[in-house]
Amino acid sequence: MIRPSHFLLLSLLVMGTMCLPGASKAGVRSGNGRSEWAVPVSPGGPFSRVYLPQNAPVGDDSGFGAKSWLQMNQSPDHNASIDVLPNAPEWFRRGVFWRFAEARAWPLERGKSYGTAVYGETEAGAVQTQFYGNALGVSVAGGVVFAESDDMFAYALNARTGQLIWRTSPVGNHLMGNPLVAGRSVYLAAGGVGFNFSNVISFARTGSAVRGMDVSYNGIFALDRKTGRLLWSFKSVGEAMPTPAIHGDVLYFATGSGTVHALDRMTGRQLWKRRLGGNDNMSSPAYQKGRLYVAMAAPPRLYCLEAKSGRVLWKGTIPGAANTGMGDVSPAVGEGVVVMDTVTRPKVRHGQTTLRPVIRAFDAVTGRPIWTASTDRGAAPPAFKGGVPLIMKGVAYVGSPVTGAYVALDLHTGRRLWTWKRISAGRSAPTFHDGDLYIAGGDSLYRLNPRTGHETGRLKVGGRMGLVSPTIVGGTAYLANSWDWIVAVPLANVAPEHGILSTSGPAGMTESSLSPNRSFHKAVHNP
Amino acid sequence: MIRPSHFLLLSLLVMGTMCLPGASKAGVRSGNGRSEWAVPVSPGGPFSRVYLPQNAPVGDDSGFGAKSWLQMNQSPDHNASIDVLPNAPEWFRRGVFWRFAEARAWPLERGKSYGTAVYGETEAGAVQTQFYGNALGVSVAGGVVFAESDDMFAYALNARTGQLIWRTSPVGNHLMGNPLVAGRSVYLAAGGVGFNFSNVISFARTGSAVRGMDVSYNGIFALDRKTGRLLWSFKSVGEAMPTPAIHGDVLYFATGSGTVHALDRMTGRQLWKRRLGGNDNMSSPAYQKGRLYVAMAAPPRLYCLEAKSGRVLWKGTIPGAANTGMGDVSPAVGEGVVVMDTVTRPKVRHGQTTLRPVIRAFDAVTGRPIWTASTDRGAAPPAFKGGVPLIMKGVAYVGSPVTGAYVALDLHTGRRLWTWKRISAGRSAPTFHDGDLYIAGGDSLYRLNPRTGHETGRLKVGGRMGLVSPTIVGGTAYLANSWDWIVAVPLANVAPEHGILSTSGPAGMTESSLSPNRSFHKAVHNP
Repeated sequence: MIRPSHFLLLSLLVMGTMCLPGASKAGVRSGNGRSEWAVPVSPGGPFSRVYLPQNAPVGDDSGFGAKSWLQMNQSPDHNASIDVLPNAPEWFRRGVFWRFAEARAWPLERGKSYGTAVYGETEAGAVQTQFYGNALGVSVAGGVVFAESDDMFAYALNARTGQLIWRTSPVGNHLMGNPLVAGRSVYLAAGGVGFNFSNVISFARTGSAVRGMDVSYNGIFALDRKTGRLLWSFKSVGEAMPTPAIHGDVLYFATGSGTVHALDRMTGRQLWKRRLGGNDNMSSPAYQKGRLYVAMAAPPRLYCLEAKSGRVLWKGTIPGAANTGMGDVSPAVGEGVVVMDTVTRPKVRHGQTTLRPVIRAFDAVTGRPIWTASTDRGAAPPAFKGGVPLIMKGVAYVGSPVTGAYVALDLHTGRRLWTWKRISAGRSAPTFHDGDLYIAGGDSLYRLNPRTGHETGRLKVGGRMGLVSPTIVGGTAYLANSWDWIVAVPLANVAPEHGILSTSGPAGMTESSLSPNRSFHKAVHNP
Repeated sequence: MIRPSHFLLLSLLVMGTMCLPGASKAGVRSGNGRSEWAVPVSPGGPFSRVYLPQNAPVGDDSGFGAKSWLQMNQSPDHNASIDVLPNAPEWFRRGVFWRFAEARAWPLERGKSYGTAVYGETEAGAVQTQFYGNALGVSVAGGVVFAESDDMFAYALNARTGQLIWRTSPVGNHLMGNPLVAGRSVYLAAGGVGFNFSNVISFARTGSAVRGMDVSYNGIFALDRKTGRLLWSFKSVGEAMPTPAIHGDVLYFATGSGTVHALDRMTGRQLWKRRLGGNDNMSSPAYQKGRLYVAMAAPPRLYCLEAKSGRVLWKGTIPGAANTGMGDVSPAVGEGVVVMDTVTRPKVRHGQTTLRPVIRAFDAVTGRPIWTASTDRGAAPPAFKGGVPLIMKGVAYVGSPVTGAYVALDLHTGRRLWTWKRISAGRSAPTFHDGDLYIAGGDSLYRLNPRTGHETGRLKVGGRMGLVSPTIVGGTAYLANSWDWIVAVPLANVAPEHGILSTSGPAGMTESSLSPNRSFHKAVHNP
């Protein structure tokens, strides 16, 4: 029996330790939540941080590939490709093969998304992407794969073995971006797609509403790269679904209130903020040469900001831009050009809303439109209305969820070089690696000849990849998907013939992690 | 090293076991998701079901109090009070004292909600209630406390010890109701407050929108009462935030699309559905004598349905009803009267929206308005705009988040008997037990003389209770709160003097559970 007075004392002790998860003992260092040096997580409960140092990469496994990951898809041109030096360990070059089940993993061999029998494939798939699985692909730096999931967790895995190094959920909100990695920190951006009722009314009255406001806690959460421990948080009013961008010691992020913030990435202290208006949904800012490029919806605008001040240097639009399209797409910046696309001019045909995708190139310095191209009108997609462009060697590669096609356009004239139509929706940027073009779409990874658009290989990996660009490091493509899995596959398995995870794969695959949570999941009673 | 061909085979084995969490080996029995006999949950991951049979009640601990829990706050008059027989074990009568930290628990000794430093107390508190903690109170049946939380988990605890029996998250959505308990099953209702963008546009164009549509998976999840295992699910288009109601073998629930469904509670098979229009937010249907009473917002209506068919027997309204008010409140039904309230007639004063609460009584059979009463105009609250009424012995007790006051009104005339103003918001129904009236509000449990409104005791329990009615079983008040805790306190500790969990409590408290997750939380590495 414990007497009440003891109860009080012991309670205070228990409470004292509650502050540990997600905070150093000295407290969160800064950010705008300065007084709050803990997050609401029950110690030992399901959201408490898991850290398994024994699974961290050892020796050369952390010494090759990129050291950091500073923007969505790694670079302003959106090419998530990383070469490794010839003296890297063999697994880097030959590729590895593993799968990791995240918290709301749905079996990959299932033919359909969860809920399909009730909601239909299109709706169920969009819900699973936006609320259960990985919206974007993963970041890979220092031999570690970092992922954010809409299951509310962020993960760090050993890139060679697929084993879990840490898992954490410092905020009860969806995590939709690439985790950014710089120095000793990892940065998560938190936000979801929902509006609350007061913003529904606001939109009806004024045509303007803040996405994500009072729909959980939004903003940036900075973690210790090695352990996943929370260092600081910076909370925003609107959602922070887009991936931020880092340059030097500054982290830039954009929100559902149409605001761009610049933070000192070491402390979370705000350097400036700029209200642009509209909503940023998934338009991740692209940083290049002192300029920040970001797009908003409602009203549809592409902005170029001076990175050091947030001053608007120029703004542009795409005529007829409709719905959330322009705020969904992250502009690609490369070779002096910004490529942006959106859906335009809704028309109802046979009872169904149709849209026309339009792609426009702007001069990166002046904002002058260089060319405008359009593709075929088609049915309105349920979510994420555009395609994230890739700029590479004088060509812009852009998909569309309206047409399902990817097109290659001359970067300087907009002339169409080829069209590849194979999958039902093209939302993600392709990845250009070692002379080939890789596209993740539906349940497969495809390889194309970038000059001709000819398909040279496919690997069926299962699940559904909506907005996932392949992250390619040496010989491995790292993928995440809507069914809440992180998957590593060797590029050599992307073969002309199809197969489920290539039962006749090449020799030399070095590791598998069949039950990736194994090292701790036995410890939890009776799954 | 594992070769690729082995990888495939072993993967399929691993996949086979993935179907176990949340599903019997024979599959989910029915419901509208018939083909889907699993939920997306990684085995051994954070959302996997935990079952600790050793913590279940033994002997007489399960044999007293209620056997089932069939409506919000237990009864159509909303009185969550359960007597125990004199031969019950002593702990039932003297009361128990424990606290259980749910998944997103925030330390109870903190003065303010998480995020207050950034968002302010009002906004941060509302967000914490709607996305992290318990919206309503708990259900207690058979010696077990059942709770739903916005942390996405449902919990079963031993009512005597506070120890965890099971915890499960069969759907990635908020759980806002009282779990219903009938026979061998427990029923959860899943849904959140958000709207997606297409419904934002729909509301602007038509004044109508479905709440919760494509904002995760909504509906009813039926669990095995003993183990928490998923038996069946029935998915709905709109959110299912309100608590359902059970009568006999039928479960009734209402959604964010203004639809009421009747299901066979054993199989999940739909018996009928009725689209009433508007949105149900938190208006839990009340069942009495073959009739079902439920309210909707936008347009604001109170409906009386024939329970066996869903036919509308009558409908009523409250003049001037504004915003979501009417769809927030569950009507109380008792003594031939239905009591309903809402906020009305918004006016902007000094830049702030103000509202006037109005309470109306209807004849339960004919729908004829009997009386209408109003209280003082005040500032618009951030969420849940009304007070859930309690009907007891010829009196209606109703709080308001606008005035912060509770009033007692003569059930048959509407004459005000008294006003009690002590807390900032009054949203929950009081509980009438053993001649006293108990109200949970802010961080405390209050005891009032029901005839005079005179306050006779208070117990500060910490945290914030928004819409939590005390569930009183014998000598214990079971509470849940927005800071994601379940708390049991002896009624004897509700004393004239204040204190934090009453350090000078009565002798005879039998149990505490200081580290309630203790039995499994050591197993998880490094919280």
